[in-house]
Amino acid sequence: MTHDKNSPILLTPGPLTTSAETRQAMLRDWGSRDGDFIALTARVRDALCDIAGVAAGTGSHVAVPIQGSGTFAVEAAVGTLVPKDGKLLALVNGAYGYRIVEICRRLGIPCVSLEWAEDQPTDAARVAEALASDGDITHVAAIHCETTSGILNPVEEVAAAVADAGRALIVDAMSTFGALPLEAARVPHEAVVASSNKCLEGTPGIGFAVIEKSALEAAKGNAPFLSLDLHDQWRGFEANGQWRFTPPTHVLAALDKAIELHTAEGGVAGRGGRYRQNCDVLVSGMRALGFETFLPDDLQAPIIVTFRNPADGKFDFQKFYDGLGERGCIIYPGKLTRAESFRIGCIGALDEGDMKRVLEAVPEVLEEMGVSDCAPARN
Amino acid sequence: MTHDKNSPILLTPGPLTTSAETRQAMLRDWGSRDGDFIALTARVRDALCDIAGVAAGTGSHVAVPIQGSGTFAVEAAVGTLVPKDGKLLALVNGAYGYRIVEICRRLGIPCVSLEWAEDQPTDAARVAEALASDGDITHVAAIHCETTSGILNPVEEVAAAVADAGRALIVDAMSTFGALPLEAARVPHEAVVASSNKCLEGTPGIGFAVIEKSALEAAKGNAPFLSLDLHDQWRGFEANGQWRFTPPTHVLAALDKAIELHTAEGGVAGRGGRYRQNCDVLVSGMRALGFETFLPDDLQAPIIVTFRNPADGKFDFQKFYDGLGERGCIIYPGKLTRAESFRIGCIGALDEGDMKRVLEAVPEVLEEMGVSDCAPARN
Repeated sequence: MTHDKNSPILLTPGPLTTSAETRQAMLRDWGSRDGDFIALTARVRDALCDIAGVAAGTGSHVAVPIQGSGTFAVEAAVGTLVPKDGKLLALVNGAYGYRIVEICRRLGIPCVSLEWAEDQPTDAARVAEALASDGDITHVAAIHCETTSGILNPVEEVAAAVADAGRALIVDAMSTFGALPLEAARVPHEAVVASSNKCLEGTPGIGFAVIEKSALEAAKGNAPFLSLDLHDQWRGFEANGQWRFTPPTHVLAALDKAIELHTAEGGVAGRGGRYRQNCDVLVSGMRALGFETFLPDDLQAPIIVTFRNPADGKFDFQKFYDGLGERGCIIYPGKLTRAESFRIGCIGALDEGDMKRVLEAVPEVLEEMGVSDCAPARN
Repeated sequence: MTHDKNSPILLTPGPLTTSAETRQAMLRDWGSRDGDFIALTARVRDALCDIAGVAAGTGSHVAVPIQGSGTFAVEAAVGTLVPKDGKLLALVNGAYGYRIVEICRRLGIPCVSLEWAEDQPTDAARVAEALASDGDITHVAAIHCETTSGILNPVEEVAAAVADAGRALIVDAMSTFGALPLEAARVPHEAVVASSNKCLEGTPGIGFAVIEKSALEAAKGNAPFLSLDLHDQWRGFEANGQWRFTPPTHVLAALDKAIELHTAEGGVAGRGGRYRQNCDVLVSGMRALGFETFLPDDLQAPIIVTFRNPADGKFDFQKFYDGLGERGCIIYPGKLTRAESFRIGCIGALDEGDMKRVLEAVPEVLEEMGVSDCAPARN
């Protein structure tokens, strides 16, 4: 890829390695209320609708970027869209599902949850049952890829169950947006939420939601905060093309460039194809070294892979992390509650060559630690 | 200055012109949970305490950066620090004072306000009276420089009145932090709030508050939201040096570089001195062209200057803006409720030479419009 060979590559769930071109787009200052920047904002908003598979021209959905991280955008969407007399059902099989429960608790939104083990996908049949038995639930929140484990949840089936029950779906597609398809036509949703610095390969600092326009119109006055009110943010864009409050201008310019590169790569299919190849190379290479993945292949999203720690007592995650870091590869700790693990991401401006770089570094570090057997403990 | 001569200069209240060095600091990707980035975060947090005049080593105050714009940080500080049984008194002489009232309305925080005309500074005697007559008020919010007009409010006197009454002060120093002194010793406050992209001359995307540690400790569980909870954000930094949610890594690296340049310029005194010179050159030059400032000199902060529109019917703000824009100078519309005006900023990586560039461009554009007399209408 075009990233600098002397910088470390980030094999994480984000922020990710970006292309040099994307970072160079941050070298200009922009007046946030100037015509050039207004045009830049409009271009990015339209492109986000296109990538979401809701043609910008139809007007059915609108893209509303918001300053901050992905969690800011999730809290903004939940707080803006769930009405004061609403109730949210959160589908939880990892930390990001729990985070939505916590957001509801903070905002005072009634919330119930369905929970699955970290290696189990969410299940549309249980969702349908829960909706049938609780008529107060107005919204369902689902995580597309739960990066706690790297599991791909069956969002299409869940969306169908939610639509059949006449409820609204909010999809946290933080780690999949731009790489795995999620067309509103196939996956009916009220909102899909993501951020600049995952599969779009922009720099961090902007989250966004692509929202059904009718739902956003109905949400006027609902948000329990000012900064994260997506209705007001949208009205601001519609009124004069401007952000209500100072946007991260350089980050938006980088996102604009990153989206240009996304299009040039063939959009969602092209981006997802590269990540799939990265994932395949990584998993087969790590298995050849004796590592085991936490998930079976049919549940593994091509986003980030959880590997079980070797049972060998000489394996030490911090030494492993530091050794790989010295070799220019930044990996990620595990986040599972019930298994010792680490994670290696497949996303960002990385290709097969970068994955091979990791696969060359791993045995060097294992040798330094004196680890010869990478098999995990038997449960 | 070191900014690119072929980019427009931003004569606005922010985002501002930044130095090329600061923007170039954004050319590297960072792992947000990596040791290098943890060290970067700690360095910036310490420096913000130093600039606030609360020596980082004393532990009396802590700096808590938060993703987003300055308004995000103001909402975060108000929502985190004002307890559920508290009440806030907002001092209002422009749009940013009103914004704090609106934040309280959204968050359900009882709020009263004292209001002054846009050309009148806030007045400590009225604050003292209000506090004496309403024992329920726990917090006072004051704007240091209200950029609606550019007026400098007497924050020292207000702080003394608030301290005398035993209440807590939150200072919105968005447009002054780093350029005008606001030492906690002289201006006792519970929190001072600002952002990366004003007088620190970083790029936009991060707000922050420097907060009395005892007040922040007492605020546990108080914030009515997750993303903007400054208590939790602080605890996260204390626990492992990491941000709770993905930070804008490139923007933080730029802020680190910008702070290095701020120190090299002589800190608050050096930065403020350059802005004062910019302001003097601008005001005297515009007066020589026949323009009038909205404020008398003794109320004018060296941050942004409001000029009254010429009464001449041939003056058209959009043409004026566009003509200056073609000459590489981005100015700012007025925001007064009761006088036609425009604004020209003195802050950012700009010096006397840049101010002279504006002063050369203005008469060219006036001539294009056919405006020969710049005197405003008599009220």
